[in-house]
Amino acid sequence: MSEAAGVFGRITIIGAGLIGSSIARAVRRAHAADVLVLADAQEAVLAEAKGLGLADTYISSVAEAVVDADLIILAVPVGAMAAVGAAMASGLKAGAIISDVGSVKASVVKALLPVLPDNVHLIPGHPVAGTEQSGPDAGFASLFDDRWVILTPLEDADQNKDADQSKLGALSAFWTKLGSRVEIMTPEHHDLVLAITSHVPHLIAYNIVGTASDLEEVTRSEVIKYSAGGFRDFTRIAASDPTMWRDVFLNNKDAVLEMLGRFSEDLTALQRAIRWGDGDALFELFARTRGIRRRIVDAGQDEAVADFGRHHED
Amino acid sequence: MSEAAGVFGRITIIGAGLIGSSIARAVRRAHAADVLVLADAQEAVLAEAKGLGLADTYISSVAEAVVDADLIILAVPVGAMAAVGAAMASGLKAGAIISDVGSVKASVVKALLPVLPDNVHLIPGHPVAGTEQSGPDAGFASLFDDRWVILTPLEDADQNKDADQSKLGALSAFWTKLGSRVEIMTPEHHDLVLAITSHVPHLIAYNIVGTASDLEEVTRSEVIKYSAGGFRDFTRIAASDPTMWRDVFLNNKDAVLEMLGRFSEDLTALQRAIRWGDGDALFELFARTRGIRRRIVDAGQDEAVADFGRHHED
Repeated sequence: MSEAAGVFGRITIIGAGLIGSSIARAVRRAHAADVLVLADAQEAVLAEAKGLGLADTYISSVAEAVVDADLIILAVPVGAMAAVGAAMASGLKAGAIISDVGSVKASVVKALLPVLPDNVHLIPGHPVAGTEQSGPDAGFASLFDDRWVILTPLEDADQNKDADQSKLGALSAFWTKLGSRVEIMTPEHHDLVLAITSHVPHLIAYNIVGTASDLEEVTRSEVIKYSAGGFRDFTRIAASDPTMWRDVFLNNKDAVLEMLGRFSEDLTALQRAIRWGDGDALFELFARTRGIRRRIVDAGQDEAVADFGRHHED
Repeated sequence: MSEAAGVFGRITIIGAGLIGSSIARAVRRAHAADVLVLADAQEAVLAEAKGLGLADTYISSVAEAVVDADLIILAVPVGAMAAVGAAMASGLKAGAIISDVGSVKASVVKALLPVLPDNVHLIPGHPVAGTEQSGPDAGFASLFDDRWVILTPLEDADQNKDADQSKLGALSAFWTKLGSRVEIMTPEHHDLVLAITSHVPHLIAYNIVGTASDLEEVTRSEVIKYSAGGFRDFTRIAASDPTMWRDVFLNNKDAVLEMLGRFSEDLTALQRAIRWGDGDALFELFARTRGIRRRIVDAGQDEAVADFGRHHED
């Protein structure tokens, strides 16, 4: 098996959290590496990963972990990319592919490009998948099944276009082997798309949970008791890793502010419709949004099971 | 078995949608009625309910359906309460309990009180449970298990306080028998609590789905493909019944506008933190909201399963 088929001789994953440990499991399941190395600067996290038997080798030093690796995947918060990139630079093999899983892409390019040597291939990536949980034991091999992985290759990053194309093909084949679907776009477009499909949704979920817990007229115990009316679904998203999400908002400021501006405009219009009792405007929107849900289910990006199967049919 | 034990001789449920049909199933499961009557003004809906065998008798005329009933539950949109109340008034038996399942309570009291005779007991109610799906076949008997039902009895609605208390006890026992937990509060407090735990969450979910589908820079197909980044959870809520939700916002205007005002204030502060790169403020909120999630899971109002069990461990 070869890189063209998505199989690498030696793969190093840096960061053994939810995403890194899920990639490790998926690599094992797909037999996508001859040797799998897992690195994490936090000894306790690495020990937990070792206890779970997720890789062949466990190395805490990033510089050592990347030696001889053909593919290196950075699964660390976006704010840590520059430091990790600098720490590993000296150990990199010529021709290696450096990729990542960050939820923001333009700033990751900006962080990594200056610290990496010229003889490696930087191909930023983002598997659009996850849960609200964190840590090595939260991962699972099927996390990326049928989910989209966005790759944002650099334009003219190298004189050698053929080599770049072949490395991009190898990384695409790798993710396909892991069960994913692959899409290519620019880092800037990625950041705009994810601002609306992921970043702003997380922000408003965090925000409403904050608003609800600060009320005086409604007790926190009431908020919790009656959360099944809709609120609980927001708390799930608002339980996502705080460091990761802080970094996302600090690193995708422009696109998030742009989308947030549109969200607020639309919300103000809805607020006005409620104040003036414009039932037709409300009904029109509420009926229109149903169709989007249907298309997401049809596209295999969610299940039609009511209430996510939290209740069982009888 | 007696009303004090939550069992009624004849129960009529008006409205055979998700909630009405779930109550019918739960009544059957709990043996909470000697005779169960299901009514729905839409012949097609009633025929579907009949096909599912949900009740003992199916009657399309509301006035006929309530004859001899000891407990009548209105499971219709809040905007339809006044008309249904007026239509059934002539058929009501003295001493009958009239309750409902509307998501707003003060306006339901205002709609029903003037049209009901003096010799019945109006005890508005709201089971805080549901899914995004609609219709008789979307219901299931366990929908109310471990969920809270809020009852909002009227103060001084009747000269006979003892009879009122005994009817309230009977309705509480009924919901307990169906698997629910019961809480008593005023209609006004209910409307404030639900504004933050249910109505505003639905409004912002509808709103972001609308915003996302109106963008020019990001195609609708991209929104759908990358919805697993968080957006899809909002589309589920935004797929809820448009008529029901239009009525909720038209009938709980003040509380919704109050809570929406607070939400927008807080969102503006977050927007400012992003613009100025205040990572500490973002981190502080994101870490704080995690605790609320934990308390909801501890309170049995949601499951800790990652991603609602949409993925399976391996």
